[in-house]
Amino acid sequence: MGFNHKHLIDITEYSADDIMLILETAKRFKEVNERRIKQVPTLKGMTIVNMFNEPSTRTRSSFEIAEKRLSANSLNFGGSSTSAVKGESLTDTVETLCSYKIDMIIVRDKHAGVPRKIADVSGVHVIDAGDGKHQHPTQALLDLYSIWETKGDFNGLKVGVVGDIGHSRVCGSLIPALKIMGCEVTVIAPPTLMPARPDVLGADHVTSNLDEALPDLDVVYMLRIQRERLEGAPFPSLREYNLLYGLTQEREHLMKDDAIICHPGPINRGVELDSYMADHPNRSVILDQVYAGILTRMAALYLLLGGSEDGIVA
Amino acid sequence: MGFNHKHLIDITEYSADDIMLILETAKRFKEVNERRIKQVPTLKGMTIVNMFNEPSTRTRSSFEIAEKRLSANSLNFGGSSTSAVKGESLTDTVETLCSYKIDMIIVRDKHAGVPRKIADVSGVHVIDAGDGKHQHPTQALLDLYSIWETKGDFNGLKVGVVGDIGHSRVCGSLIPALKIMGCEVTVIAPPTLMPARPDVLGADHVTSNLDEALPDLDVVYMLRIQRERLEGAPFPSLREYNLLYGLTQEREHLMKDDAIICHPGPINRGVELDSYMADHPNRSVILDQVYAGILTRMAALYLLLGGSEDGIVA
Amino acid sequence: MGFNHKHLIDITEYSADDIMLILETAKRFKEVNERRIKQVPTLKGMTIVNMFNEPSTRTRSSFEIAEKRLSANSLNFGGSSTSAVKGESLTDTVETLCSYKIDMIIVRDKHAGVPRKIADVSGVHVIDAGDGKHQHPTQALLDLYSIWETKGDFNGLKVGVVGDIGHSRVCGSLIPALKIMGCEVTVIAPPTLMPARPDVLGADHVTSNLDEALPDLDVVYMLRIQRERLEGAPFPSLREYNLLYGLTQEREHLMKDDAIICHPGPINRGVELDSYMADHPNRSVILDQVYAGILTRMAALYLLLGGSEDGIVA
Repeated sequence: MGFNHKHLIDITEYSADDIMLILETAKRFKEVNERRIKQVPTLKGMTIVNMFNEPSTRTRSSFEIAEKRLSANSLNFGGSSTSAVKGESLTDTVETLCSYKIDMIIVRDKHAGVPRKIADVSGVHVIDAGDGKHQHPTQALLDLYSIWETKGDFNGLKVGVVGDIGHSRVCGSLIPALKIMGCEVTVIAPPTLMPARPDVLGADHVTSNLDEALPDLDVVYMLRIQRERLEGAPFPSLREYNLLYGLTQEREHLMKDDAIICHPGPINRGVELDSYMADHPNRSVILDQVYAGILTRMAALYLLLGGSEDGIVA
Repeated sequence: MGFNHKHLIDITEYSADDIMLILETAKRFKEVNERRIKQVPTLKGMTIVNMFNEPSTRTRSSFEIAEKRLSANSLNFGGSSTSAVKGESLTDTVETLCSYKIDMIIVRDKHAGVPRKIADVSGVHVIDAGDGKHQHPTQALLDLYSIWETKGDFNGLKVGVVGDIGHSRVCGSLIPALKIMGCEVTVIAPPTLMPARPDVLGADHVTSNLDEALPDLDVVYMLRIQRERLEGAPFPSLREYNLLYGLTQEREHLMKDDAIICHPGPINRGVELDSYMADHPNRSVILDQVYAGILTRMAALYLLLGGSEDGIVA
Repeated sequence: MGFNHKHLIDITEYSADDIMLILETAKRFKEVNERRIKQVPTLKGMTIVNMFNEPSTRTRSSFEIAEKRLSANSLNFGGSSTSAVKGESLTDTVETLCSYKIDMIIVRDKHAGVPRKIADVSGVHVIDAGDGKHQHPTQALLDLYSIWETKGDFNGLKVGVVGDIGHSRVCGSLIPALKIMGCEVTVIAPPTLMPARPDVLGADHVTSNLDEALPDLDVVYMLRIQRERLEGAPFPSLREYNLLYGLTQEREHLMKDDAIICHPGPINRGVELDSYMADHPNRSVILDQVYAGILTRMAALYLLLGGSEDGIVA
């Protein structure tokens, strides 16, 4: 029942109980919102720095809304306008921020390990909002929330992750998180988009054949394909990718009746998903994932900053 | 008395009663402010997205202040940092925003029709903050407010709109709004800045002769001239424009004693207005229009989001 | 006891009593914060415009946090996205802002005198957040706060200011402020970084010899060296600068036992300070200065906007 984490950087440091507490707290925020209570005073007066050293409209917006609905003060910091351009070290920048007496830093950086380094330097709470291809734990939590809400349980659930496994910032947290919760994970990608050592991801199965894998899956998690990766590549081309790995209407007959579709957004329609699948009324939980992003981030902010479950209600 | 609109996109969908309700609500917000109550809790917890896909410091600032004085949470979204650069469609971006459980989108876009498209896709309230040369309804409302506050009544009021009629984003809402309120409208421009079909604007009179039109006008609405439009153009040059269409001290003798001067800002001093006229203590209501922008936007936010008149007082 | 200033633009207009009132108010905000009251409702509903016409992450962030902890509404305005690009005059921009019924403008500009001009045009309170090399009064106040907190008293305190005296935006307010408080000030710089007329700064002593000056100093204020200034310059090179004017471990034996080190940040480690000195546990107050920036800005906002001392407690 207790929640004894200071940071949310590496999802593998969280137990199944920790993760369930976050999901259940997120669900309580949803119930509060459904009673038309749109903002709770829980984090009033706390200062949360959104340090986005590379742009990420979606993740930043989602955190910003979560912060405001908890009544925290947000400070956006980062990008090209920071004193990083003046040659100051990351350590000095973080120590300066902490001298403002802030309470938390949300950090997005293209370099793996930056959130951990910030946590080591600063005395404040840190959430990793994506560090290179390393971790993106709040993405994993929102994915878990949507799966849990739809499927009710994780145990024995068969989840396939399809696409650019080698370059995805999503996999590094998602696959371990699914394993912690007891899921059976298959990664599915063309050989050119598979990492050199897929075994280190911790998946149970690795395959290049989507059609063979599909009939077993309860959850089909489609990764975003960056067009740039495929343009000019030997194989597959964009068209070949869509033919072999796109989740299209033609493939629906291979899916379980109750299999659901996840995607971290933004979708490349016509590449990894066609519109039939992206907008499928029974299968697609893609927009639910967006809302789950607000709820699970509210829950993580709340639990890390010391809220008790009783404190949620406005 | 009722206000049954979900969106503020096309001013022609609003009746004279609807518009009067907005103006009267704006006036109540002014009275509240004059009692030194600077912020009301009316929209506490609501999330309003300011989606400015082209820059507009004034309009965005005015909305942002209106939102804060109603205690709403503002999320600025748009510009070059959005995932629009990742090739996501407008529909997907809007559906994502709506999954954040937001309450309203304020949209500025260079393409006509974008606010309507957003309203069709999303389930939330939409305010058009300027879409190309199409509509800019809150600009029309603030203009009406300043005219109403000065003149007391619209009926039979003679309003002249002077300048770059053909390229103005102001005219598309202002002229219909003036007609709805019972004004008599004259558009005045050199032939090169007049649209091909000035009749579709709905004005009562069309002329190229400012000096002939001036003596009849109760309100002289000067449009901003973009210097780029005239530089290198065959006729009129900037100097000729100022000579023939500038509202200058030399022309004051042609104006009614109580004629007032409006301008949407920012002013090009020495082009459409000289400083004598721009700063005229009795005639110029240009700075009143700026304040009216806050008040009418507060009123529109308030009425669209379901506030009742009783709820205004802090 | 009274505080009768409308603006904070020129520190020389402030008496020692005025400055002490600001420092004591800042200290009260620190005490409130130490009771874990992180935000006070004092300026609720007030609108403060942060008009940063050149980038300054640190100063802007510090003001923004100070505003939020006083519950004011912040409007960030400035930079390349303003209507300044549309050719509007500063006067018109300021009059427009004031028509929003704002309460204060915080202004940073590369041109000296802009804050005064804004104060003359507008009816609202103005704080100079740095205008060229002219003044930066809140930097001086935070410096004084850290000195006062460490030393307890200003009278007869010997302060050395070391570095790029000729191009610093810090000196213009800091040196007069130290003199107002009764300190004895020495400026120390290589001849190439000394202004043509160092006497106008008001310092008591001017020297190019750091080693001779150090043994007398109670406070060593190291200015930031912009690498660009020294690269390619005849003398000193970066390395020579560090050898002759850097505050390094090798120089510690020349310092008084209780001499402290200040720096406005961000530090150029290895140029004006080595890490031994920058992070010195007993001597360096550099991070305290950052926190003092929040506290003194809260105090200045509070006192200028009419708060009484009784109003601080949440």
